[in-house]
Amino acid sequence: MSREKLSSQEIAEALGALAGWEMADESTAIEKTFRFSGFPQAFGFMAECALFAEKIDHHPEWSNVYRTVVVKLSTHSAKGLTKLDFDLAAFMDKAASHH
Amino acid sequence: MSREKLSSQEIAEALGALAGWEMADESTAIEKTFRFSGFPQAFGFMAECALFAEKIDHHPEWSNVYRTVVVKLSTHSAKGLTKLDFDLAAFMDKAASHH
Repeated sequence: MSREKLSSQEIAEALGALAGWEMADESTAIEKTFRFSGFPQAFGFMAECALFAEKIDHHPEWSNVYRTVVVKLSTHSAKGLTKLDFDLAAFMDKAASHH
Repeated sequence: MSREKLSSQEIAEALGALAGWEMADESTAIEKTFRFSGFPQAFGFMAECALFAEKIDHHPEWSNVYRTVVVKLSTHSAKGLTKLDFDLAAFMDKAASHH
């Protein structure tokens, strides 16, 4: 089930498959800072991720200052990390690579 | 000049013409929290503001969690508030009203 809280072991494996994401909020969230060449690239990235987030009904906490986007992912209903967070993280990494 | 730092008197007048914006960071910035009916509305608002921000080459610091968008405006080159901040604030209020 994609909204079931992952175990520490599952989280470690999922994190190991990604680059640049770090644990946050006492291991209930993961965070990453993305940097782009300018604001249009940063916001283009956000727009692409927003469409995906809406599609999977799982949304990021994120902030943007010019060419930087800081993202935090967590599943509040599970009070921790689920497969959805890692699906969204993987999508974001892929999206960032072409903006 | 739109990138010239405004006086306290000018800031008070400009703030008085807006609703819901508050001074922040020792009067070098203004902040507002916008709430929408859902994520698509919140992100639609951000997309509209992003296009305007790029057009006037003046960008917000902002964060989004689901249906909430928190915005901070300041002109770093002037180390304070300029007409650009209030132009962007007024645009954001107008954009928020139809999302």
